[in-house]
Amino acid sequence: MKKTATRLADGRELFYYDSRDDAVRDTVDQRPLQRPTTTGEIRHDPLLGDSVAIASHRQSRTYHPPPGQCPLCPSRDGRHTEIPAAAYEVVVFENRFPSFTGDHGRCEVVCFTDDHDASFAALDPGRAALVLAAWTDRTAELAALPGVEQVFCFENRGPETGVTLGHPHGQIYAYPFVTPRTERMLASAAAHRDRGGESNLFDHTVARERADGRRIVLESEHWTAFVPYAAHWPYEVHLYPRRRVPDLLALDDGARADFPHIYLEVLRRFDRIFDGREGGEGGTAGRPPTPYISAWHQAPFRHPQRHEFALHIEVFTVRRTAGKLKFLAGSESGMNVFINDVPPEAAARRLREVASA
Amino acid sequence: MKKTATRLADGRELFYYDSRDDAVRDTVDQRPLQRPTTTGEIRHDPLLGDSVAIASHRQSRTYHPPPGQCPLCPSRDGRHTEIPAAAYEVVVFENRFPSFTGDHGRCEVVCFTDDHDASFAALDPGRAALVLAAWTDRTAELAALPGVEQVFCFENRGPETGVTLGHPHGQIYAYPFVTPRTERMLASAAAHRDRGGESNLFDHTVARERADGRRIVLESEHWTAFVPYAAHWPYEVHLYPRRRVPDLLALDDGARADFPHIYLEVLRRFDRIFDGREGGEGGTAGRPPTPYISAWHQAPFRHPQRHEFALHIEVFTVRRTAGKLKFLAGSESGMNVFINDVPPEAAARRLREVASA
Repeated sequence: MKKTATRLADGRELFYYDSRDDAVRDTVDQRPLQRPTTTGEIRHDPLLGDSVAIASHRQSRTYHPPPGQCPLCPSRDGRHTEIPAAAYEVVVFENRFPSFTGDHGRCEVVCFTDDHDASFAALDPGRAALVLAAWTDRTAELAALPGVEQVFCFENRGPETGVTLGHPHGQIYAYPFVTPRTERMLASAAAHRDRGGESNLFDHTVARERADGRRIVLESEHWTAFVPYAAHWPYEVHLYPRRRVPDLLALDDGARADFPHIYLEVLRRFDRIFDGREGGEGGTAGRPPTPYISAWHQAPFRHPQRHEFALHIEVFTVRRTAGKLKFLAGSESGMNVFINDVPPEAAARRLREVASA
Repeated sequence: MKKTATRLADGRELFYYDSRDDAVRDTVDQRPLQRPTTTGEIRHDPLLGDSVAIASHRQSRTYHPPPGQCPLCPSRDGRHTEIPAAAYEVVVFENRFPSFTGDHGRCEVVCFTDDHDASFAALDPGRAALVLAAWTDRTAELAALPGVEQVFCFENRGPETGVTLGHPHGQIYAYPFVTPRTERMLASAAAHRDRGGESNLFDHTVARERADGRRIVLESEHWTAFVPYAAHWPYEVHLYPRRRVPDLLALDDGARADFPHIYLEVLRRFDRIFDGREGGEGGTAGRPPTPYISAWHQAPFRHPQRHEFALHIEVFTVRRTAGKLKFLAGSESGMNVFINDVPPEAAARRLREVASA
């Protein structure tokens, strides 16, 4: 793998990740870009105890550009995009419309392929391994920035998740604080330990799922994929390495080599969940792809309890049947109480049914 | 106000709330309904520490019925709906597809009017007062049920919030536990007290908003409406009574009489936020109404700290511009970190601009 660092015309950093060590990346961004003015601010909510990023400059961000105007496609035929090269494998660059910026974190975009019409599930294992290498490298570099407490690599896929660009891409948020969801998991792990729990709470949870078996989706030598007992979303899979590590940096070579295969299989199964189901959407032609959110959970870097955390990735869809979405309505958004209409055992059964032949 | 209690053919309770004390409600539900079989289950998430309602019977719930098939319209012309009467003012009944049921809470539907094409904002103050009386009465009765810890009255408005029935209605969830969001607010209030805060945290927060003034939307003798300093949603208003009370039961007559006017004005302003804005949606004809979620926050009944809680109602929209919605994407759903593209001061300014003449 070869990494080439460069800068866009407005000073933002961009990194090429190439599978070949002899890749040459010397194209210069020729756009007349000004350094973007961002007005980001982080505000604390005294009653909920959380922090909100107020980012008004994002209102003008690129929104469903017409075909031929995609800013994540390579620069070709005289059209200059965010990526100066005429072709690329994996590219990461600073988001032009960041939610977190300056001393308050950083936001980056990860392009998985230069093929506008592809998807993560359609990548080959080599490319997925290159994306994993990019996530790992960015996690290490962002962790070293002053003020960054936690790095979050994720992908929103499909307009139903708010994606405004169709090109296959994910994002990385480097937060200047430990996020509420991670705080809560760490607090649960500490409470479990203090109660005299024999093993780490994450290990205990995965072991319980493996022993039960009903919600296991698939297993490999190094990974376990299951629908959690108290799944919050209609179809939700948690993928854990067998050997607990706090973050991507600590993943061993075996788990790293195994990851592309199991993760691609999970994503491909997500795309088949609603095949042949109500609404007559069976078959590939014209079928809207399953929207999903895929989220890497990593330990915060300076948290005293970071070694109790378990790196894992959570993938879930907001679709509950072929034609219906799950909304965060009153109970979820008002009270943080989730209602899930799909029993986790049924979700796991479906995800086993649609295994690749 | 007159309340008439009755039961539907399958045994579910239904209550009429009438403004006239001589209202007669003796129509019998003539449908051949079976007692619904529900398979609700509440599961605890060991890592997040919250409870999820698994409610698979809800997958078959009524979903955007065609015109003329609305189950919340009155029963007329030989068509039998959920409400046996041929006309009604306010009706509350047990949800046929509940998320919580039996020993694990209860779910009810609140119909605000028998006019299918109306909206809460279009009600007259007398009707809004009758809805407030119904919310208060149901809160009292549900609080008395064994196993109910907290009552949540709310309205989801618009298909963008997951509403599957267009008829103007809200819901009431009686939870068998204290919800995570309420727990967090109570914990913040306790921490503030323990730090030696001079006044209650809720009082302190409202007083700070009134002293600052930039985010105040409107005030009346008994209520204060403002956009919170760290608003999570593009347009979000919190409405507090001037005198802090833990729940609807404790609201005094002055605040009660004043509520319909200020709340209706808040809702009417929400409907005007996007008037004349991008997308050429100005004017009323054909303009999609502003989707919103309106959520009453009440103290849990048996919580030792209930008298530190402040009853209030939060109204917010998921729309960020005339044509664009706010989605709960990776950061919000994966890490519980909200990104808000509309500065709270700008939101408050807009909500002052669109005051009724």
